[in-house]
Amino acid sequence: MMVLNIIPYSFVFGILGLFFALFLFYRVRKYPKGNPLMEEIAEAVHSGAMVFLKREYSAIAIFIVFAFLVLWKLFSIFTSLAFLTGAGCSLLAGFIGLKASTRSAVKTTQGAITGGTPLALTIALQGGAVMGISVAALGVAGIGIFYYFTKNPIILNGFAMGASSVALFARVGGGIFTKSADVGTDLVGKVEAGIPEDDARNPGVIADNVGDNVGDTAGMGADLFESYVGSVIASLAIGSTLNPALNHMALPLLLIVIGLASSVVGVLSIKILKNFTPQSALRNATYISAFLFIVGAFFSIKILMGNLATFWAVLSGMISGIFIGLESEYFTSGKPIKTIARIAQTGSAPTIITGLAVGFQSCILPVLTLGGAIFISFKLAGLYGIALSGVGMLATIGIVMSTDSYGPIADNAGGIAEMSKAGPDIRKITDKLDALGNTTAAIGKGFAIGSAALTALALFSAYQKATRLSTISLTNVETIVGLLIGALMPFAIAAFVMNAVGRTANRMVLEIRRQFRETRGLLEGKAKPDTDKCIDIVTRGALAEMIFPGFLAILAPLLIGFTLGPESLGGFLAGATSSGVLLGIFMANAGAAWDNAKKWVEEGNLGGKGTETHAATVIGDTVGDPLKDTAGPSMNILIKLMAVVSLVFAPLFL
Amino acid sequence: MMVLNIIPYSFVFGILGLFFALFLFYRVRKYPKGNPLMEEIAEAVHSGAMVFLKREYSAIAIFIVFAFLVLWKLFSIFTSLAFLTGAGCSLLAGFIGLKASTRSAVKTTQGAITGGTPLALTIALQGGAVMGISVAALGVAGIGIFYYFTKNPIILNGFAMGASSVALFARVGGGIFTKSADVGTDLVGKVEAGIPEDDARNPGVIADNVGDNVGDTAGMGADLFESYVGSVIASLAIGSTLNPALNHMALPLLLIVIGLASSVVGVLSIKILKNFTPQSALRNATYISAFLFIVGAFFSIKILMGNLATFWAVLSGMISGIFIGLESEYFTSGKPIKTIARIAQTGSAPTIITGLAVGFQSCILPVLTLGGAIFISFKLAGLYGIALSGVGMLATIGIVMSTDSYGPIADNAGGIAEMSKAGPDIRKITDKLDALGNTTAAIGKGFAIGSAALTALALFSAYQKATRLSTISLTNVETIVGLLIGALMPFAIAAFVMNAVGRTANRMVLEIRRQFRETRGLLEGKAKPDTDKCIDIVTRGALAEMIFPGFLAILAPLLIGFTLGPESLGGFLAGATSSGVLLGIFMANAGAAWDNAKKWVEEGNLGGKGTETHAATVIGDTVGDPLKDTAGPSMNILIKLMAVVSLVFAPLFL
Repeated sequence: MMVLNIIPYSFVFGILGLFFALFLFYRVRKYPKGNPLMEEIAEAVHSGAMVFLKREYSAIAIFIVFAFLVLWKLFSIFTSLAFLTGAGCSLLAGFIGLKASTRSAVKTTQGAITGGTPLALTIALQGGAVMGISVAALGVAGIGIFYYFTKNPIILNGFAMGASSVALFARVGGGIFTKSADVGTDLVGKVEAGIPEDDARNPGVIADNVGDNVGDTAGMGADLFESYVGSVIASLAIGSTLNPALNHMALPLLLIVIGLASSVVGVLSIKILKNFTPQSALRNATYISAFLFIVGAFFSIKILMGNLATFWAVLSGMISGIFIGLESEYFTSGKPIKTIARIAQTGSAPTIITGLAVGFQSCILPVLTLGGAIFISFKLAGLYGIALSGVGMLATIGIVMSTDSYGPIADNAGGIAEMSKAGPDIRKITDKLDALGNTTAAIGKGFAIGSAALTALALFSAYQKATRLSTISLTNVETIVGLLIGALMPFAIAAFVMNAVGRTANRMVLEIRRQFRETRGLLEGKAKPDTDKCIDIVTRGALAEMIFPGFLAILAPLLIGFTLGPESLGGFLAGATSSGVLLGIFMANAGAAWDNAKKWVEEGNLGGKGTETHAATVIGDTVGDPLKDTAGPSMNILIKLMAVVSLVFAPLFL
Repeated sequence: MMVLNIIPYSFVFGILGLFFALFLFYRVRKYPKGNPLMEEIAEAVHSGAMVFLKREYSAIAIFIVFAFLVLWKLFSIFTSLAFLTGAGCSLLAGFIGLKASTRSAVKTTQGAITGGTPLALTIALQGGAVMGISVAALGVAGIGIFYYFTKNPIILNGFAMGASSVALFARVGGGIFTKSADVGTDLVGKVEAGIPEDDARNPGVIADNVGDNVGDTAGMGADLFESYVGSVIASLAIGSTLNPALNHMALPLLLIVIGLASSVVGVLSIKILKNFTPQSALRNATYISAFLFIVGAFFSIKILMGNLATFWAVLSGMISGIFIGLESEYFTSGKPIKTIARIAQTGSAPTIITGLAVGFQSCILPVLTLGGAIFISFKLAGLYGIALSGVGMLATIGIVMSTDSYGPIADNAGGIAEMSKAGPDIRKITDKLDALGNTTAAIGKGFAIGSAALTALALFSAYQKATRLSTISLTNVETIVGLLIGALMPFAIAAFVMNAVGRTANRMVLEIRRQFRETRGLLEGKAKPDTDKCIDIVTRGALAEMIFPGFLAILAPLLIGFTLGPESLGGFLAGATSSGVLLGIFMANAGAAWDNAKKWVEEGNLGGKGTETHAATVIGDTVGDPLKDTAGPSMNILIKLMAVVSLVFAPLFL
């Protein structure tokens, strides 16, 4: 079949995609500069982010070298090289994303000044698309090259493990950075010193803005890149055991090429859509990509596989991704947030209780949706179907990630407008774009969890195939013990990272207090704060604290696999996935619901800012912060990383 | 063997135990009366509790009749009768416990006045022992009688289902009652009107005191009774498939008879121990019972089984029960609560975040302990070993439940002292006894969760045997989907009951506000509040809200079993157990840690009452209340009830 001869060259499309991202980056950089103050602030955020990234990458590099040698020793140089490439692609995606998002924010502010909402929207989305398209293109290129040289899934598993381990460090480290900076800065600035958010006098304000980029852009990018790569490689691995193997291995690669192309069209369409309301512009861009992908998938599956069974699996994954996103949106911006805000009139404790209940409740629909997608795709195409539904959910990652990265750019653009005192009109535009960013972020987070769950299950399926276990039976005590310990892991990691945020935020509080006390004229705006010192503190904290959960996530499955055996490890992965998905949804949605309940009050409802009700929602928001931005996202990574580590080491457990 | 001929008569020991409980009850009633005001308050609490119980039981009776007919139709009249007896025993245990605890509280207050700490301690423990010994004796008598007439485990499963379904309604209904009353009363009384806790002017204060008894005594009793009965019946069911069946079926019955006798000795020993500090008196009474039980178990297993394999399973269950209790104690009264209190100095949001982290962290050791106990007991004696380790943990329930029921009696005694203005010296004694009650309650809750987990696993093992499934494999999509939906159940139920507390508390708030506004002279102490109206509101709320979770817990496993099949249901139970245990531990310990952090500040640490720090810990305590007293305990029941329903209906899924 001709298609089969072309697919090994799919990496070329990846490289083309990277050129398109590069083109977008230079396009964004060519938009007009802001005034010197704006540029100065933007430069501070950019250089702060780069300092963090450099130090984070140096720390991760040590781990990569170590893991490279271990994998070489245990498997082969090819697995090691695949690991290295996977890790490298993930690091590169984070770097590109962070660079683009810090550079785009000031252009967006300036765009709001010179061209109003349409221009600001275009710039912010193009900035986000640098990250979005890069993530998709790096996946296609990286997997494609290893597919070209070797069609061995065991080697490709190394690529997934590289992407996963970097993701854990990026997500956990970034999550701790962003929330320690946020909580610490707000606690002293807003609460103690009584100065507004994003005020340039606050020594922590640059760290806070850096954190938005580090957590939401680089962390999210690494997270989704891992899901993307994981689901594709799981399909490849399962496909290699089916007949005809070549067609089954080629299909996921073909699908992501189509997805990449559809995403590029979606990004370009914003040129035409920019005069719609921002909300429908972004939504329509996503729908265009989704539609193109589905049409492409239909015809290519028909040609490659001869029947449409796998198409329905792909479609069920894609639809469930959209559903889970919409369900998250409802719980984090619909009726539930108004309920929380109304309850907040009776105090902060009821606010917390209601938010927790909303979080628990928000798990119901996504889990049933996931269960449905798994069931349908398995019934149609077996384990391969489960893996393909993950690919279906993630194939249009280019556009999904673009709209998601748009969020922190709009947020930062608002911060720059505030710090440079750009005036209420401009602030109004950036606020509107920022509010939309919260919605896309909520959808993105729902999507990240849904895709993590499907990817973890896909990797779990690949693990079953790799171990050649005919059964992973809960009638064995090893499986049950594995299940219990697996279910425990997300709770243990959550405890650790939440405490890590507490410890790091506390150091930040002490430093900001010290500067307000010791730097004369700081509060009067006559002296400059030492923002670098604050960045240094959260960087050190984040890097030190990411080591333990990282090693725990890698070592726990190995420990179970080598002591209790591969069947127990199967139970462990199932337990970790089920409890991790639930805890992840709960944390993400409770946190976002509190955040948006606060925003809803700030819009003037129930008395607006300055009321007791508002104060109660602020407490809810603060509680939700480490849940939704640190512990919650860590769950996604944890379940995928443990599954991929198990998959890579599966041959050694036998 | 002679022993085998005696065991069918074990129900006689149960009846003797009931007489002992009755004797204790009359013993307590003979202690001197309090003054008229004290008696009046006590009478109000007692009659409030009885009103609630009567209405709760009427509602449950409808369900029992319905289930009786369904079981008769589907199985046999014997299963129906066993169900009826199990339900009846559970109801009776709740009734006896509530009667004893409401009657003992005022005697304890009076005991503190006339005889100081030793007398008050003796009365409170004897009052608690009425419940403790009754629970154990009803179990021995009820199971014993059905064992005498029929040695058919399928019929006995009906008994367990009766106990379980009543437990769910009692625990959920009681939990909603107690927390709605507590939160509603405190919110208006302490926060809005600025009057102290337990102040007689507050219209909700009697409902609050009734709630302590309804939730902590009746609810806890039904919970542990269910675990007790469930683990014994699971061992019987598994034992019936082993060879020699009669010995394997007789052993669990023999063990609980020994446990009952040991508990009676422990309760009696308080007479000698009463001049120790209260803490060591209760602890030593527990140790005496445990020691006697272990010696008895050793010899009886040696005689009955010929080897000691099962003894180690029993011992591992018992030791893990003690460990889990101690681990709970550490996290809810050790260093972690001081950490929470210190963090509370920086505000209420960090207090909540730290408490959540403590709750997550507190899951680690108990789950590893459970995993170890399961692993050891399975390796020594297979599925039967797992079930027996549950019996080992629960055999001394008589004394464990006695020290646990002691808590609400001491708490109520304090409330009566406050309301009757008994003076600071008396209040000091009752405060000391109450503080100890918090520790025994924490240990008791840890124990309740640990035993629920072991019982659920024992029932799960019995379910495997009953379905004759050779495997419940996670390689089947039905099992995986079952696992996911099972893991979701605890989150869904938690969401529902937390919202139920919110709704009911809100109605309570409105009523108390109305009375303060409309009843002239109420705040000045010149008019009496309408306390019955408040009791009526929470009773209605609790009864209406317990229906949905009850039916969901019963219908969900049936739905899975009949649509996706018995293997999927196996996955469902495993998922529900793992996530339910973790969520249960998290909620119980986070809640208790906040509570005790507040108490620690109230003892004068970090500035004591009236400080910002104290206010932050009060918010933590309020958030923790529905977690630790409503949603958390519901998890225990949920996982056991779903397992027992699956076990009973197993023959129909094949």
